[in-house]
Amino acid sequence: MTSFPDPADLTARLIRCPSVTPEEGGALDLLAKALSEAGFACHRVDRNGVPNLFARWGAKGAKRSFGFNGHTDVVPPGDSTSWTHPPFSGHEEDGWIWGRGATDMKSGVAAFAAAAIAFVQERAPDGAVILTITGDEEGPGKDGTRALLDWMDAEGERMDVCIVGEPSNPDRMGEMIKIGRRGSMTLQISAKGVQGHAAYPHRAKNPLHALVRLLNELTAEPLDHGTEHFDPSGLQVTTVDCGNPASNVIPERARATVNIRFNDAHTSHTLDRMIRDKAAGIEAETGVSFDIETDVSGESFLTRPGPFVEMVRDIVRDETGLEPVLSTSGGTSDARFVKDHCPVLEFGLVGHFMHQVDERVPAEQVRQLSRIYRRILERYFA
Amino acid sequence: MTSFPDPADLTARLIRCPSVTPEEGGALDLLAKALSEAGFACHRVDRNGVPNLFARWGAKGAKRSFGFNGHTDVVPPGDSTSWTHPPFSGHEEDGWIWGRGATDMKSGVAAFAAAAIAFVQERAPDGAVILTITGDEEGPGKDGTRALLDWMDAEGERMDVCIVGEPSNPDRMGEMIKIGRRGSMTLQISAKGVQGHAAYPHRAKNPLHALVRLLNELTAEPLDHGTEHFDPSGLQVTTVDCGNPASNVIPERARATVNIRFNDAHTSHTLDRMIRDKAAGIEAETGVSFDIETDVSGESFLTRPGPFVEMVRDIVRDETGLEPVLSTSGGTSDARFVKDHCPVLEFGLVGHFMHQVDERVPAEQVRQLSRIYRRILERYFA
Repeated sequence: MTSFPDPADLTARLIRCPSVTPEEGGALDLLAKALSEAGFACHRVDRNGVPNLFARWGAKGAKRSFGFNGHTDVVPPGDSTSWTHPPFSGHEEDGWIWGRGATDMKSGVAAFAAAAIAFVQERAPDGAVILTITGDEEGPGKDGTRALLDWMDAEGERMDVCIVGEPSNPDRMGEMIKIGRRGSMTLQISAKGVQGHAAYPHRAKNPLHALVRLLNELTAEPLDHGTEHFDPSGLQVTTVDCGNPASNVIPERARATVNIRFNDAHTSHTLDRMIRDKAAGIEAETGVSFDIETDVSGESFLTRPGPFVEMVRDIVRDETGLEPVLSTSGGTSDARFVKDHCPVLEFGLVGHFMHQVDERVPAEQVRQLSRIYRRILERYFA
Repeated sequence: MTSFPDPADLTARLIRCPSVTPEEGGALDLLAKALSEAGFACHRVDRNGVPNLFARWGAKGAKRSFGFNGHTDVVPPGDSTSWTHPPFSGHEEDGWIWGRGATDMKSGVAAFAAAAIAFVQERAPDGAVILTITGDEEGPGKDGTRALLDWMDAEGERMDVCIVGEPSNPDRMGEMIKIGRRGSMTLQISAKGVQGHAAYPHRAKNPLHALVRLLNELTAEPLDHGTEHFDPSGLQVTTVDCGNPASNVIPERARATVNIRFNDAHTSHTLDRMIRDKAAGIEAETGVSFDIETDVSGESFLTRPGPFVEMVRDIVRDETGLEPVLSTSGGTSDARFVKDHCPVLEFGLVGHFMHQVDERVPAEQVRQLSRIYRRILERYFA
């Protein structure tokens, strides 16, 4: 009798791989080993130093092909001493698994990998099961899932449908399936003034005063109040830095990063224009010059419901007893790339603790998610 | 016939004492010897390793007592090989005296010491002449002039008025007398929110948004537009730092430094209160908590124009041919301590070359300053 990996245990083992973007940390190696042993053909599809894993059970070009997508990289843990248990310990206690990536999303990867292994070994379906797992979803993302999809196109590999295993439920397991996403863009804003003595400001131009004014204008009012299918857009200043150690010196330069998650009331172009116009106004008044670099992760998109979405919705409802809402809320994910390859939806864990200190997940929730994935595979190949 | 020290020669001899803060370097010893020989009672008032010299001619508790204040310590010379003449050479050439301290302010000390010696020896005034000279004005300053004034309070020593001999003239000898200073304070502001994913701001609290709002409130409008004797107060944000490298993470903490140069429309207490009130308002609205540490370098002070100031002004005008402006501009000096003891003003050399490589002074300017001090003593005791 074959033994299948416990998804909760696999989650803990993955957490112990310190895979802060862009480090592989052993996470993809661990998965490749488990999948290879279960009969998956595994290929590392690294690009520009970014580690990626493609795994297929069944024949290339099979009649039916079901895909999963996820990532093993995690955001930095911040101050490790703030954590109750070390962030890469994978500590298990009272039914919880602790550590960076416990919800986002080593658990999701563990759930679909364990489900896929158990499913193909027990049922040997007439078709292919494909896992696409990247080590760069939290970082630039240019050589992550994109590289996997580019490689698949070149190799003639194909998913007919795909589930991205990102946390999709705000509070309770089963309440939400995501069928689209807001767009995401990041702006690096540099302000350059004139250095001087703090006691003689008329001889200087303080770049921080201009920058603070711009950032305050950007955050004082919401960008919108939401649209028919989408939540409100959100703008977050994620860092401001200057590094001036002398309190009697007005610095020459300061910089900030702004991240925007935007709905279909905007495009990256209209937002970029709006911010540059505000900056130009402040520049004209203060003499402090702004340099803005804009990086667009993705525009907003929407996947209309169909048979695939309804099948997943049925199984989630049946397993959890909740009626899943079809939503476009939340952050960006690699679904924005997958949607150009095949129909894609996102369903995963409850997103509590994502990117926070003391990130953790109930082991039973990971097992439940894995059961849902398993039933989706069974229904799809029935 | 008695011979009096030439102030230019005394300047050169003082420069040859390498008295970089906190080293005494022989400078106070040299002065104590010259003053003792002229009949001054000299006391070293060292505290916590900082050398200070108190010298009084005349009786303790005399009916009238005129004071001078200055310092013999100097800032480091930097790279000595960059100097045309070695920084502690006291080289004299073409009417210039070269070296560290030539303007700030061994020349000023030499000018008032020479003036005092000549005056008391020729006139034997009915009163006391007191010199307070510290070896720590360029350093922390906690055990310098403060220690001298503490000692004087304890001993019942008293100056009725005092001139601080710091360079007071921007460009030409006689154009400016300083009768006060703006206060200076520095605030370290820390903001603590809740870390989270940039796409889920409702689960986080962005400390940068709260901080940017506070800083914008502080910089949007001037603190005042100046008062009768003071320039406008100035508030400068000198740094903002967060250090968050991940553009998809809302940080937990951010911090800023704010430096304020304030006039007599404020005190450090009213400004501190104003900023804490604004912070409390933002804290109540946003849930981001602020921690503020306030360090006060000195309150603003003003010696109101009156007979003492007018007497000095008359003599400066008469000696230099310029109409001296009564100013409160510029950086901090030990006048901020002396003002709690007695009315104080600052008059000294032209401040060119202060703290620079190739610091130097025209010998004739030092002699002119000494003549002015001498005439002030004569008028005061007339």
